[in-house]
Amino acid sequence: MSLTHVKVVGSGLIGSSIALALTAKGVAVTMADIDPQAAALAQDLVGRRPAITTPDLIVIASPVSTVSQVIKGEIEQGFNLGFIDISSVKVNPVVEISTLDLDRSRFLPSHPMAGREVGGAESARGDLFQGRPWIIDPAGVAPEILAAGRELIEICGGHLIEMGVAEHDQAVALISHLPQILSTALASRLEGAPSEWLDLAGSGLRDTTRIAASNPALWREIISANSEALRPLITQVISDLNDLLANIESAPQVEEFIKSGNRGRAMIPGKHGGVARNYTFLPVVIEDKPGQLAALFDECATAEVNVEDLSIEHSPEQFTGLITLALSQSDAEKLYSHLLQRGWRAHAPR
Amino acid sequence: MSLTHVKVVGSGLIGSSIALALTAKGVAVTMADIDPQAAALAQDLVGRRPAITTPDLIVIASPVSTVSQVIKGEIEQGFNLGFIDISSVKVNPVVEISTLDLDRSRFLPSHPMAGREVGGAESARGDLFQGRPWIIDPAGVAPEILAAGRELIEICGGHLIEMGVAEHDQAVALISHLPQILSTALASRLEGAPSEWLDLAGSGLRDTTRIAASNPALWREIISANSEALRPLITQVISDLNDLLANIESAPQVEEFIKSGNRGRAMIPGKHGGVARNYTFLPVVIEDKPGQLAALFDECATAEVNVEDLSIEHSPEQFTGLITLALSQSDAEKLYSHLLQRGWRAHAPR
Repeated sequence: MSLTHVKVVGSGLIGSSIALALTAKGVAVTMADIDPQAAALAQDLVGRRPAITTPDLIVIASPVSTVSQVIKGEIEQGFNLGFIDISSVKVNPVVEISTLDLDRSRFLPSHPMAGREVGGAESARGDLFQGRPWIIDPAGVAPEILAAGRELIEICGGHLIEMGVAEHDQAVALISHLPQILSTALASRLEGAPSEWLDLAGSGLRDTTRIAASNPALWREIISANSEALRPLITQVISDLNDLLANIESAPQVEEFIKSGNRGRAMIPGKHGGVARNYTFLPVVIEDKPGQLAALFDECATAEVNVEDLSIEHSPEQFTGLITLALSQSDAEKLYSHLLQRGWRAHAPR
Repeated sequence: MSLTHVKVVGSGLIGSSIALALTAKGVAVTMADIDPQAAALAQDLVGRRPAITTPDLIVIASPVSTVSQVIKGEIEQGFNLGFIDISSVKVNPVVEISTLDLDRSRFLPSHPMAGREVGGAESARGDLFQGRPWIIDPAGVAPEILAAGRELIEICGGHLIEMGVAEHDQAVALISHLPQILSTALASRLEGAPSEWLDLAGSGLRDTTRIAASNPALWREIISANSEALRPLITQVISDLNDLLANIESAPQVEEFIKSGNRGRAMIPGKHGGVARNYTFLPVVIEDKPGQLAALFDECATAEVNVEDLSIEHSPEQFTGLITLALSQSDAEKLYSHLLQRGWRAHAPR
């Protein structure tokens, strides 16, 4: 079987992005949403197609708390071929679906690990899933539904990973939901702080609170639905913070706390899913005006080096910027001497 | 009085960077350190000068716990003109210095808010303080010491801010030390996690744990020395996390928690010390190979737009990258149509 018609229920960022990817490959898509205007907007975005009979697969792209209800509605309308969901939490919908009059083998639990800090069909992108992890739990799923789901993920460009729903929920609790909770807890302490204090904020505060800007309606669902996996993690953080409080004047114990963070941070793999790379960092001071970054990256191209990552640090009230380029050690050394020869304000790589 | 000779005690990143800035402006600098090799390296870096008699000002750039002892040592050697420190915590050293046989008016407490995740004289940069906040507490300081300190900060390019030592410690506890603690607490939870889970890490986890890689020896000092200001903040975070735990299955209360983080995050000012700007974000998919960034920034220069900020998102196991450019709304729209005309894989700005 090859996908020819997919129905997507839920016209938000994820549902609409899947629809865009599918239509780009010639698959007919029917959009639906409890909000008819949202569905109409999404359908316009993905293109109107002549009405076709039964879809090959139904994508449930509505909030996690509604997955089982949406499937129930689809079954009542007579669509009972196959379902795949996209929720960030997997155990809860699977448990709720088990109460439905649905052959469990018709439902493929899945989670595309892509998202943005903005939502809605208007933010949708057909390439949203390109190379991003897309987790499925194939246990007990009928071969034809599994094949349809795999084809959908392949069309979207996702990187397929198989993981049981319980393990999935524990993994995302640690690497996605706990960071959200701690970033929020930190940012919420800033409310009401004097603006003179906040003027002192550096990149550390900015980075740690970036995701605190996330969507409350989305995250209340995720956190509540994954409470079981989150509870022990939050409890452990509270315990660690209580330990720190009790020993905060003991430099050796504070040092051990910081070191445990060093070790945890070092576990995060680097670019392209490989082990963490040791980049060499090359700081360059530039004027903060159009053309400066272009000129700098021209030099990178001339020197034939590959910039792995970069950060921009702005100086408050001064219109200069510090660009820190991350490169391999050999590229960093090559670029450094190149930039110096060309009169750039580059500083020794390290 | 104009500075002609400054002694810097402490040859780490901050002391050596101050020394580099001073020598660049013709001020003679004598480096000292309890580690003679470190002092020699730093002195080599800043340049050897003929020995001169008494320094105009002594910069105490040693760890915060040693400030009063270092001053005591300097006084015993007969240097008692004027002192300025650079510690990240201010109440503790001031209290300790009050026990010394030192006229308190000879000591200017200061804190340059610049740093790097790497330390040591070998990481020093004369422009480290350019445009960065540099806090002093002038209360009760003799006019000539204050003038010498101000001149030093001006030479270093720092942005002078006056703030009392107690307020300073509360401000940095909130905007610098608490972020470090929560980033560390989060990262330490990753220790021992399965590598398959960490392979799912996205930019949220990376950003929130970046500063968890910070130096343990430096941070044990800072956190212990500022325990008084930190204790109520950590206690409040523990209380907030306990509240979340108690209400984690109540979506409205979880939503209110996320919203409080939204409000706190929105308090952080944007680039150049102004109020947070609403940037428009323009996503562009590029090939991950040399020359692509250069070509993209060439287009920015051609379109005469100013890139305010940018981020690079790498796709695991795929060699494409997503660049998100932050621009003003009008620049984003201009650049978007320009890029589309030129065949770039740009997506609608938002």
